This record gives sequence, C-alpha cells and structure tokens, in this order.
Amino acid sequence: MKNTLFTLLCLFSLTAPALAQTQPAAKEHRVVFHLATDDTLVYQMVIRQVNNILNVWPTAKIEVLANSLGISMFRREGSKLEKPVQALTEKGVIFAVCQNSMRAMKLTKDDMLKQATYVPVGVAELVMKQEDGWSYIKAGF
Amino acid sequence: MKNTLFTLLCLFSLTAPALAQTQPAAKEHRVVFHLATDDTLVYQMVIRQVNNILNVWPTAKIEVLANSLGISMFRREGSKLEKPVQALTEKGVIFAVCQNSMRAMKLTKDDMLKQATYVPVGVAELVMKQEDGWSYIKAGF
Amino acid sequence: MKNTLFTLLCLFSLTAPALAQTQPAAKEHRVVFHLATDDTLVYQMVIRQVNNILNVWPTAKIEVLANSLGISMFRREGSKLEKPVQALTEKGVIFAVCQNSMRAMKLTKDDMLKQATYVPVGVAELVMKQEDGWSYIKAGF
Repeated sequence: MKNTLFTLLCLFSLTAPALAQTQPAAKEHRVVFHLATDDTLVYQMVIRQVNNILNVWPTAKIEVLANSLGISMFRREGSKLEKPVQALTEKGVIFAVCQNSMRAMKLTKDDMLKQATYVPVGVAELVMKQEDGWSYIKAGF
Repeated sequence: MKNTLFTLLCLFSLTAPALAQTQPAAKEHRVVFHLATDDTLVYQMVIRQVNNILNVWPTAKIEVLANSLGISMFRREGSKLEKPVQALTEKGVIFAVCQNSMRAMKLTKDDMLKQATYVPVGVAELVMKQEDGWSYIKAGF
Repeated sequence: MKNTLFTLLCLFSLTAPALAQTQPAAKEHRVVFHLATDDTLVYQMVIRQVNNILNVWPTAKIEVLANSLGISMFRREGSKLEKPVQALTEKGVIFAVCQNSMRAMKLTKDDMLKQATYVPVGVAELVMKQEDGWSYIKAGF
C-alpha cells in the first residue's frame, strides 16, 4: 500500500513542471514588427507605433525586424532616423536586420546604423519569435 | 494513511483548473484583421473576406482593427461602406479605430461612421488580441 | 481504501493526455506565408525566403497561401515560376490557392500551375493554420 502511494506521489510530482507551463506568468507584452518596405513614411510610422506601445506598456519587449527592402531603414548614409532609433534603443527596443537581405543588396555592417543588430535569416527570426509567444505586426500600408 | 490520501486528493484537485486550460474548448474561431491602408480596393476586399469567413463559420468572432491610413475606411463623409459595415455589425463584427491615428489625422468621432468603436492604441489592440489567442491577418496587397 | 486509491489512479490517468499536450514536442517549425499581391517582385522574394528557411531548417513545414491578387503567382499562362515552384514542391512546400478568389477572378484549376493545391476560403486557412500553431508571415513590401 505504501509503495502504491509512493509510486502515485512520484508520478504526481512529474506533472508539476508541465502544470507550471500552463499557468500564466505576470503579463509581459512582446511584439515583433516586420518591416519589408523602403517607404520612408512607413519608417516614421513604425517609430511612432513603437513609441505608442511603450507609452502604454513601458516594459514591453519590442523588436523591429527588417528584411527585404525594409533594411533600408537602417542604412547609415543620410539617415534621418538615427536619433529616434538611438532613443528607442536606450529604451530596450531591438532593431534587427536580415543578413541574407544585406548580401542580396550588397550592404555590409559598415553601411548600417550602429544601433542595428543582425540575424542570419529574417523570416526565421519572425518564426522563432512567434513560436516563443511574441505577437506579430506587419508594418506598412 | 487517510491523511496522506487526503493530502494527495487536495493536491490533485489543485491541478484541475490548470488542466482545464489545456483542454480545447469547443472551437471558436477568432480573427483580427489589421487594416492600415487608404486603398479602397482593400476596403472592399476586407468586407468580402469577413463575409467569406462568416459563411463558413457563422459564429466566428471577427474584429477589423484600423490604424494609420486604414482609419479612412470608417470616415463618414461620402462613405460607400456604411451599408455593408452595418450589415456586418449586425452579425457581431467589431470595427475598431485607433484613436492615436485619429488624433494624428485630426479626426474626431463625429467624422466617423456610427458603427465604429474605438481603442486608444491600435497596435496594442493587435498585440492583446494575439495574446488572447486570436489569429492575425494583415489586410491589403 | 483500495477503492479510493483505484479512483485516484483512474482520475490521474485522465490527466495524462492533457499533460502530454503541455509538453513541447521536438521543435518542428511551421510557417504560413500570406500572399495577396500581384507584384512579381514579391513572388521572387517569397521563393527566396522559403528557400532561406529550408536552408536553415530543412524539415520545416511551409505553406504559401495565395488569396486575392496573390493567386496570380500560380497562373499557368506564361509562368516564369513553375521551375522554382516545382523544386520547392519536391521539398514538401505546399502552394495553396483560395478558390473564392479564383471564382472572383474567373479562373479555374485549368488556368493554374499543376503544383497548386486548393482551399475553399483562403483567410479561413490562414486562421486554421495559426490556431494549429503555425507562424504567420505576410509576404510583400
């Protein structure tokens, strides 16, 4: 009898980690913006929307993932966005650039804003973020 | 022995709510459309797609969230969409407008269709809906 | 006493399937691309991005869901994409076309590439994929 109970308790304890996963943690908002356009109006929109989110959720985790034509947002030359990008970086926002797209557009890290971070495959990053529970927002009109 | 069993049963009962969360409820489809363009062809497309969903899933919960240029869909003046918007509202579809975007475009509720509802920050609404398990569809081409 | 234990064990066994759902399986990446444009540059981009994903995750499940103007990607006449579409089909990629959109554009299966598969309502497919845990990526700029 004791053994049965012991077995039961052991089995039961195995369930604890799984159950923990089903209990919601204190809510942390996480958002990845997908930016794939060279439309500079969209760039201003993204900056504004990221700020709007941080205004309501100051601790939100936000990543702006640029691939395809979107990586133009982070070109250093003639950039009008370095200041707001720097300000958002200081608030913890990540600006990630697809290195596949950089190769396709013959750009190197020297061509990009110093605030940029890099991922090998932009679309894979978007997938991993969603798999990890981040919300997805496609930037642009 | 009785005490041990009682403890076990108590522990067990604690797991019930957590387990309930892991068991799929009768499937309820929930979709948020993200509308950010002033392209009137897209507006017609969204109306059609919402209807297409309701044709296959009459009880689906659908919200069309307009931010940025997309809020033009719900301008009252010269609206060609009030009739289909009204018809969908009667089927429970929510048309939500970003108030941040309204301020940026100097629009007030008086400028908007009476069927519109309002959210303070459109992108935050999109995040909350996804966190709550809604599917996300970006409208537009 | 024995009865109580037996009841307990039965109750316990009921929890097993639910718990199984909470334990992460070996990670399988699943992505649905939403294609709604007739921009042929986007078509090339989608082909490239699907290949990029398969390069890093050879066993990823990928579906390209075309609705609205996006179904043009799979028109047979004068297609420049049959070769890459065929190559990706051989790697397990699904190219799905919305039949509602086909009707709207007066296209039949005879007009489409033989690699295409069909779904009755494209947006419903996008919803079901997300409900099933697939990541969503909106193609286009």
